[in-house]
Amino acid sequence: MTDPVSRPLAGIRVVEFASFVAGPSSGMALAQLGAEVIRVDPIGGNADYRRWPLSEATGASLYWTSLNRGKKSVSLDLRSERGRDLLLALATAPGPDAGIVVDNAVGRRWFSYEALTARRADVIAVRVEGRADGSAAVDYTVHGDAGVASMTGPADTDRPVNHVLPAWDLLCGQEVVTSVLAALRRRDRTGQGSHVQIALSDVAQAAVANLGWYSEAAERGPRARHGNHMYGAFGVDFAAADGGRVMVVVLTPRQWAAVGAATGTVDVFVALEASLGADLQTDEGRYAHRDVIEAVLKPWFAQRTSAQVADELTAAGVLWGPYRTTADVASDFVADPSGRPVLTSLDQPGIGAVISAHAPTRWESSYSGTSPAVELGSDTDRVLSEVLGLGGDEIAALRADGVVG
Amino acid sequence: MTDPVSRPLAGIRVVEFASFVAGPSSGMALAQLGAEVIRVDPIGGNADYRRWPLSEATGASLYWTSLNRGKKSVSLDLRSERGRDLLLALATAPGPDAGIVVDNAVGRRWFSYEALTARRADVIAVRVEGRADGSAAVDYTVHGDAGVASMTGPADTDRPVNHVLPAWDLLCGQEVVTSVLAALRRRDRTGQGSHVQIALSDVAQAAVANLGWYSEAAERGPRARHGNHMYGAFGVDFAAADGGRVMVVVLTPRQWAAVGAATGTVDVFVALEASLGADLQTDEGRYAHRDVIEAVLKPWFAQRTSAQVADELTAAGVLWGPYRTTADVASDFVADPSGRPVLTSLDQPGIGAVISAHAPTRWESSYSGTSPAVELGSDTDRVLSEVLGLGGDEIAALRADGVVG
Repeated sequence: MTDPVSRPLAGIRVVEFASFVAGPSSGMALAQLGAEVIRVDPIGGNADYRRWPLSEATGASLYWTSLNRGKKSVSLDLRSERGRDLLLALATAPGPDAGIVVDNAVGRRWFSYEALTARRADVIAVRVEGRADGSAAVDYTVHGDAGVASMTGPADTDRPVNHVLPAWDLLCGQEVVTSVLAALRRRDRTGQGSHVQIALSDVAQAAVANLGWYSEAAERGPRARHGNHMYGAFGVDFAAADGGRVMVVVLTPRQWAAVGAATGTVDVFVALEASLGADLQTDEGRYAHRDVIEAVLKPWFAQRTSAQVADELTAAGVLWGPYRTTADVASDFVADPSGRPVLTSLDQPGIGAVISAHAPTRWESSYSGTSPAVELGSDTDRVLSEVLGLGGDEIAALRADGVVG
Repeated sequence: MTDPVSRPLAGIRVVEFASFVAGPSSGMALAQLGAEVIRVDPIGGNADYRRWPLSEATGASLYWTSLNRGKKSVSLDLRSERGRDLLLALATAPGPDAGIVVDNAVGRRWFSYEALTARRADVIAVRVEGRADGSAAVDYTVHGDAGVASMTGPADTDRPVNHVLPAWDLLCGQEVVTSVLAALRRRDRTGQGSHVQIALSDVAQAAVANLGWYSEAAERGPRARHGNHMYGAFGVDFAAADGGRVMVVVLTPRQWAAVGAATGTVDVFVALEASLGADLQTDEGRYAHRDVIEAVLKPWFAQRTSAQVADELTAAGVLWGPYRTTADVASDFVADPSGRPVLTSLDQPGIGAVISAHAPTRWESSYSGTSPAVELGSDTDRVLSEVLGLGGDEIAALRADGVVG
């Protein structure tokens, strides 16, 4: 009965019928904690199967294989009645730790909550949507609508700056995981199933509201863009002599003292406080005078290499981090894997060696959750046999009819 | 035994000893699902208590009150032995659904996992860290290090562009929720407690790895910046005649046909395909020729008001979204709350009416999870009485000694 420490969700079975980032990232997180996650795709793959980036060497999607690690893969002809019936049967299979489905199948009536509950009354169904009214939206269309793109980027631009990270998709995926586990806890206790819907647009707006930003704007209008500066505190990037950059952040008096000590600017700021009539010992004072603080500190960085900057900031206890490109991160990892411990090298079938990641949570001090993605459809027969009890002849007949991949 | 549908976590008690975004957002998500979340702060508040944005009207933090809704608040003198003892006692209180603590108390030996297990062997302790090696980091320092800032922003800039949204903090917070629920499930089944650590730096790098971006960079170097364009598909922003902007995204053949139909450019693109020798029916083709597609479409937007653009794109079935500032979102909500259904108006003690949000998950078609933040320390007496069984005299003595707030 004791699960290995890193597999607290062992025994749970989740059927995932979703694509792109939000749903699949939730399934992967569940799989990384030990759940059996069965991703079901149409034969030949869903719309995300060839999504960029692709491996230059083999043409396979680095995106799909990265977001679907550790899952089983079943492929079915979902335009056929029999294929749909098999998916519904998998999603509603019996067992206290089964009958859980994550999807983004908005508008597919044959896969509605009612269709699921008709087969299993206590099913747990979590659906990712675009907008709560049922209309379509993706990360890249809800981002601007939530107000964040208009706050991002250089102070001297009027054009919104899109994020590159699909932050809302990723956040939504984790909220799906929460929903699955909360619903399962309730079902364990009460026998009650759950119908959970989560719209990307709501994920974005709730998160921004939870930072107080809409209330702020309602009181005083839109916040002025502030480029790479942090809001309401001191934090900005600096360039070293060799072109490397670092982000320096000050959130406490001790961190501010460390910046002064590292850069030899304590007396300058004392004199500036007197001359400006400012209190640079507070977040507010440092934010108000962020431009002059930046200007005073800038030469110190410009006179040192990135390595010197790193050593001296660290020695002084400054809160800072380097800027790296994704290629830098990859070469950092190859040069010294221990410096980026969450990353790991993985032999991905269809691609070869890739830079992958453990789950970010360490359980009892250990990383875990590292398995490659299997090839599309490669668990079809075994899952149909184990979960639905189909015999070899039945599966062969389904294959002959093109119902299974 | 049946919980209200929107409170699947009713009965669980979590002690939160954390500040800023990651830990507190996890506690709020748990509270929104019905858990009893007791946030413990030093008397006078933690380092995040006055974090911007502040209410112009009252000076209270819109940030703190937004991120700490629905929780109980206890304040203790955590420099004193007795205050620390009370926090440890709360975190390790008995009961099958208690003994769960979320913190970011890196480096505080008196609150170590060992100190917790000494009092309750099966405690569930989830700790948010900066880096996995114990060094300090915050969202704004791990962002550049993960490689995302170097990919963000206009194609013609060399300077990294910081995100404004603390995406890693928010994502980390939800991963904390997952950890709590997974650990609780395991403890329910096996009696085993859990020690979970999660570093912001690992959250960021794992997420980027999960999109395949480090493997991509290892194969072919850093991805060129592409401004507001989506990567590997067609998606970019357009300005309407009145200065409003929209994001248009094409991920399917149907969406591409809709763009052509809405803008009357079908024949132009047919002719361009012949002239360029390009296949604009694929993501790859549209991405490769994104600049010319943008240039062809641009005048259509520039000749229409935002309202016309919205109507015509929607009528044609184009996947699009508007750009709004946070002030626009606030006024949208005031003008028509039904258009932004996850948002809600709330009477926040100490501030007044604020724009707040439900939890983004709808359970059985209903939003829930909307309560204001209580004033700092306002549940101290009741919690000490109910959870630890302290009598009125004992609490009065602690207060006289300055141990409780």
